[in-house]
Amino acid sequence: MAAADGLCTELPMWVTNAWYVAAWSHEVEPGRLLARTVIDEPLVLYRTAAGEIVALEDRCCHRFAPLSMGRLEGDALRCMYHGLKFAPDGSCIEIPGQKLIPHSACVRRYPAQQRGSWLWVWMGDAAAADPAAIPSTVALDDAAYRLQAGAIDYAAHYLLIDDNLLDLSHLSFAHEKTLGLDMPQWADERPAMLPLERGLRVQRWLRNHPPRGFMKKLGERVDVWNSYDFLFPGIFLQRTDFHPAGTAERCGGGAPDTAPLFHRVDEQAVTPVGERTSRYFFAAGARAADIDPDRVGRLFAVTETAFHEDKALIEAQQRLIDLDPARRMLPTSLDAGPTRFRRLVDDLLAGEGGRRIPASAVGSS
Amino acid sequence: MAAADGLCTELPMWVTNAWYVAAWSHEVEPGRLLARTVIDEPLVLYRTAAGEIVALEDRCCHRFAPLSMGRLEGDALRCMYHGLKFAPDGSCIEIPGQKLIPHSACVRRYPAQQRGSWLWVWMGDAAAADPAAIPSTVALDDAAYRLQAGAIDYAAHYLLIDDNLLDLSHLSFAHEKTLGLDMPQWADERPAMLPLERGLRVQRWLRNHPPRGFMKKLGERVDVWNSYDFLFPGIFLQRTDFHPAGTAERCGGGAPDTAPLFHRVDEQAVTPVGERTSRYFFAAGARAADIDPDRVGRLFAVTETAFHEDKALIEAQQRLIDLDPARRMLPTSLDAGPTRFRRLVDDLLAGEGGRRIPASAVGSS
Amino acid sequence: MAAADGLCTELPMWVTNAWYVAAWSHEVEPGRLLARTVIDEPLVLYRTAAGEIVALEDRCCHRFAPLSMGRLEGDALRCMYHGLKFAPDGSCIEIPGQKLIPHSACVRRYPAQQRGSWLWVWMGDAAAADPAAIPSTVALDDAAYRLQAGAIDYAAHYLLIDDNLLDLSHLSFAHEKTLGLDMPQWADERPAMLPLERGLRVQRWLRNHPPRGFMKKLGERVDVWNSYDFLFPGIFLQRTDFHPAGTAERCGGGAPDTAPLFHRVDEQAVTPVGERTSRYFFAAGARAADIDPDRVGRLFAVTETAFHEDKALIEAQQRLIDLDPARRMLPTSLDAGPTRFRRLVDDLLAGEGGRRIPASAVGSS
Repeated sequence: MAAADGLCTELPMWVTNAWYVAAWSHEVEPGRLLARTVIDEPLVLYRTAAGEIVALEDRCCHRFAPLSMGRLEGDALRCMYHGLKFAPDGSCIEIPGQKLIPHSACVRRYPAQQRGSWLWVWMGDAAAADPAAIPSTVALDDAAYRLQAGAIDYAAHYLLIDDNLLDLSHLSFAHEKTLGLDMPQWADERPAMLPLERGLRVQRWLRNHPPRGFMKKLGERVDVWNSYDFLFPGIFLQRTDFHPAGTAERCGGGAPDTAPLFHRVDEQAVTPVGERTSRYFFAAGARAADIDPDRVGRLFAVTETAFHEDKALIEAQQRLIDLDPARRMLPTSLDAGPTRFRRLVDDLLAGEGGRRIPASAVGSS
Repeated sequence: MAAADGLCTELPMWVTNAWYVAAWSHEVEPGRLLARTVIDEPLVLYRTAAGEIVALEDRCCHRFAPLSMGRLEGDALRCMYHGLKFAPDGSCIEIPGQKLIPHSACVRRYPAQQRGSWLWVWMGDAAAADPAAIPSTVALDDAAYRLQAGAIDYAAHYLLIDDNLLDLSHLSFAHEKTLGLDMPQWADERPAMLPLERGLRVQRWLRNHPPRGFMKKLGERVDVWNSYDFLFPGIFLQRTDFHPAGTAERCGGGAPDTAPLFHRVDEQAVTPVGERTSRYFFAAGARAADIDPDRVGRLFAVTETAFHEDKALIEAQQRLIDLDPARRMLPTSLDAGPTRFRRLVDDLLAGEGGRRIPASAVGSS
Repeated sequence: MAAADGLCTELPMWVTNAWYVAAWSHEVEPGRLLARTVIDEPLVLYRTAAGEIVALEDRCCHRFAPLSMGRLEGDALRCMYHGLKFAPDGSCIEIPGQKLIPHSACVRRYPAQQRGSWLWVWMGDAAAADPAAIPSTVALDDAAYRLQAGAIDYAAHYLLIDDNLLDLSHLSFAHEKTLGLDMPQWADERPAMLPLERGLRVQRWLRNHPPRGFMKKLGERVDVWNSYDFLFPGIFLQRTDFHPAGTAERCGGGAPDTAPLFHRVDEQAVTPVGERTSRYFFAAGARAADIDPDRVGRLFAVTETAFHEDKALIEAQQRLIDLDPARRMLPTSLDAGPTRFRRLVDDLLAGEGGRRIPASAVGSS
């Protein structure tokens, strides 16, 4: 619907040469077809008999019926409108009642990989797809951890969700009763930021914090080391380590050099679906040694509640941007992360000959 | 909402000089007003005391209130916003508190005809409306048949539904468990096609078919003669005749010259409502001598189920077209019918000075 | 969504220098935040500890989160996304973790006034806001009256609702069973109209009317004096006085010079929310001496029913206008009020350098 919101231009608006999280691994069961849209492109995901992930364009080349409404026949996929059949590489191998199959009869195959518990798809030039570029993540069934997983659909541009994750100062306000831990430090102190290949590393100590609830067992006061890597398009890999009070001081404000008392894990992925729709995948939990199975459910519930607090704010933010797309945001020192990351996205877009991030869609910083 | 989907042009996009099915006859009860939209034009339908069908523009010329929210006063129709009253010919015959009624005070009357059990309206130049051009159809109460009737609203361009009806190869796939009768011939063999004045005649033999269910009484094997006329805008008049196996051979592949064992009737009409909305009217049944009253209910239920299979596919197809309107479809030998019919529609549009069928709306074949 | 309906132009489309009713006074409780949109601008309303009404732009200047999702801290309002805090005058007084607050850090404050039971906001140049220009209305708790209040959201341009209120001939038709009182005079006789500063005064006698229901106690026949002021943007202040039959004659058709038998009050305000959305505030009742508490509930219920009759008609009218925006309405003698008022609105728009009322949005008269 490019024309409808005045964003109609011929330049690409998406970075294609990137790995995007399309689904949780468990969402693609053997023998089943899963339809997903990523950067406005329809995908159908399934597994071969050998368990490998296949991601094809979810639009039959014949009359554009969705292949996700089709039928798996072994490792091949048949369109159940007029019966064209496609191999897992996307080539058409059967057209009913027609012997000759033209070379152009195919759907696009997207490079796809299962890593950890996410299914990643490469939306750009297949020759450039390097599985080694997929970041490491903890699998949900890793015995060293207790994790729970979820997903939320957003009616908002993905960069607004990225902004949120790149500026955790909002924990003191948006999540003061959930994830904020009553800690004004989130907002009052600025974290350190290091550039990464396609992202940022964000790190900080939150010192002298009185633990709440079942965490009280860790002591009266703790120093919390919060560190996350944030990678394009919106991969958020965070560790939150609880140490005895004084550790931050002892380490001179740098990374801790001792094992934590409690090791929390948060891994999230923001995937653009379209210009105003995104999908947000998340896992939260802790080292198995640190948490009981029932406690992890409570930790996850609080986390999910917080994510719905974000969703309400971000979707409202999107509506207000759309109400007056020309208005400019006020930059503050809180915005270092979002600003640096948006510059990075602009560079990636420019590298593909695309247009800059439209201020009319996500505001200007 | 032309501007919203980039189809904004000054050229007409509808063929107006045509009879369109606006409603089932029984939908317009005496004394009642029925609102319908056809090719983006609002209509109100009602019957005069003599039972004649009146189709007026459903928009009072005064302030554009819908006359369908008005009141019948004899054969005249009063707008119940400010009280203007209209004769069945569309002329205004009363303006409250005003003696002089200007000549321009009128709403458009559309030529309308009841034929069979459909109400037909002519959307173009009234002088060109020839009731003789309305095709013959079987009335629902014709004692020689047992028929049931229904209607489905589509969120899709009417030509996508026409495509579906013009290429019955999809019966082998989309309807393999309903109308397809386990017959790969639908897809594997191409029917004969003859040009008609504003449409196509499509005919074929499906040979040596083993009847299922209550049709087993017809014999172990039958030859099925399937023949339909397809007329603009989407009138589908089909007969499916079951003959003893060998009849096709005996007739040299031509039309059967003997009475069928079983004579099935399917009559359907596709009516464009707007650019992305259509209404699909259908009746299905068989010769009264061939089917019990309870069997016809079962036959109709299977048919209606199949039509919902089509709706799911076609609406998905529309969404995929809209996601990337510039993409071109892959022509196959399956598309002879749709391709010829779309050329005919383009000719009709050109004949009215309109623009060509927009590929952005319905794909290009 | 200016682009979507073809109304995209750079010229302003709203009159800003005007008092708009944003809410009923009781909708803004102490300690609570109320979000409202007026002429496409998002507002948050609250009360200071002293009870004064504050109306701020409901969009934090930082990242455009809505302040209405924020928190009142005394008389100040904190954004609960990243914590910026604003004084009641709209100036930012705190940015977490940042000492320097730039001058540009503020949200717009709109002049706001509580008068009667409505909260009025001035949407234009604050220097031009004159509280004395707010018309007098009866407060809901005025002991001399018994009134009830309500509000309805419309999916229609506010001028279509104004049209409705400026031509009460529709009472004879749209409300023949509710407010019309079986009186064809509403449609058959034209009222007198006098120009007001930013509106019209509309007056008429409805003579020799047989009262219905509990009004029968007034006599077999009454003369009804109906008089209302209609002011931009859609303030409708009406008095309907029942007098003994003959009073109209005795007063020579002019205003009555004696106290009425029954004094009905209707006060309404139409507020544009956006191009196709409006909010309609209304109070109805009568002089306390004239009506029992339970009767006023019945009177109000009939009135509210009538307003839903209007809503159904006007929203349908809007849909029909949007279906064919270029079509022109037919002027009649009924339209004197709407026509004069629309000319006044055009003058107000021109006075602010805005564009004329778009015929494509509300038809042309």
